[in-house]
Amino acid sequence: MIILGIDPGTTAIGYAFIENPLAPRALTSGLLTIRADSAANRLKELHKELTALIDQWRPDVLAVEKIFFSRNVKTAIEVAQARGVILLTSSLAGLRVYEYTPLEVKKIITGDGNADKLQVKKMVQLTLKEMAQASARDDVFDAIAIALTYCFRERHLIRES
Amino acid sequence: MIILGIDPGTTAIGYAFIENPLAPRALTSGLLTIRADSAANRLKELHKELTALIDQWRPDVLAVEKIFFSRNVKTAIEVAQARGVILLTSSLAGLRVYEYTPLEVKKIITGDGNADKLQVKKMVQLTLKEMAQASARDDVFDAIAIALTYCFRERHLIRES
Repeated sequence: MIILGIDPGTTAIGYAFIENPLAPRALTSGLLTIRADSAANRLKELHKELTALIDQWRPDVLAVEKIFFSRNVKTAIEVAQARGVILLTSSLAGLRVYEYTPLEVKKIITGDGNADKLQVKKMVQLTLKEMAQASARDDVFDAIAIALTYCFRERHLIRES
Repeated sequence: MIILGIDPGTTAIGYAFIENPLAPRALTSGLLTIRADSAANRLKELHKELTALIDQWRPDVLAVEKIFFSRNVKTAIEVAQARGVILLTSSLAGLRVYEYTPLEVKKIITGDGNADKLQVKKMVQLTLKEMAQASARDDVFDAIAIALTYCFRERHLIRES
């Protein structure tokens, strides 16, 4: 079982592939860089690049943050458009889609909804040492964290059942 | 030459097909109604329905409003996600995509950037009488208006050249 975590963006989209949710193992992570000139062409490029990644790694699940706010409306709209394409592309490829709010990510990763970014980072680094350390960029790190959220949530659900 | 105008939404998406930009003639207009339960499934349904419409009417151009604001962040994000899927679907089908701000729509349709909604409505109704009258719904009317914006803009560009 393979999880794809994505941190949506317009020209830089972080991604991470993790396998085996109950004992997570890093497969690969990185950044999709989109260069096209118009909004429509950027979305088409994102669709194409993401489809290629999915074809290569064959994930079963997409994990992505549920809602985000932004002081810049224009940016928020453009990121949401890209997020729509990410949901569509994954869904068309047969992935099940899981969305988590930032609060759920914190709570599921650290056990504490009031945790700060550093506590999340520490927990992710403890779990996926090499992958987390190799990701200098925030958008790649956030993709790893959201993929790991799915893994920890699954473990929790099994424990509860 | 056929123009597709779309008014993006999450569960109700207005559309209008107009041919012959220099002497616009109404082909058809209506509302895509999306019923799926999750965000990802709604986007997949939208993609499927829009692809079917494009296959049927074979438009050359998509015309869509450039930016929108909303007091409700959640709604704005969901509409932007749908808008991303509309841009992608049209772009994958080979349509050229044209985006106009609300100000441009007013200015191009009425000749006056300060025009109110009623003046826009009047001009659209004068140009495409039956189509505009048949559209009781705002989202269908807005789709007609944006398709007509492309037509009027083309005429203007030819005059200027």
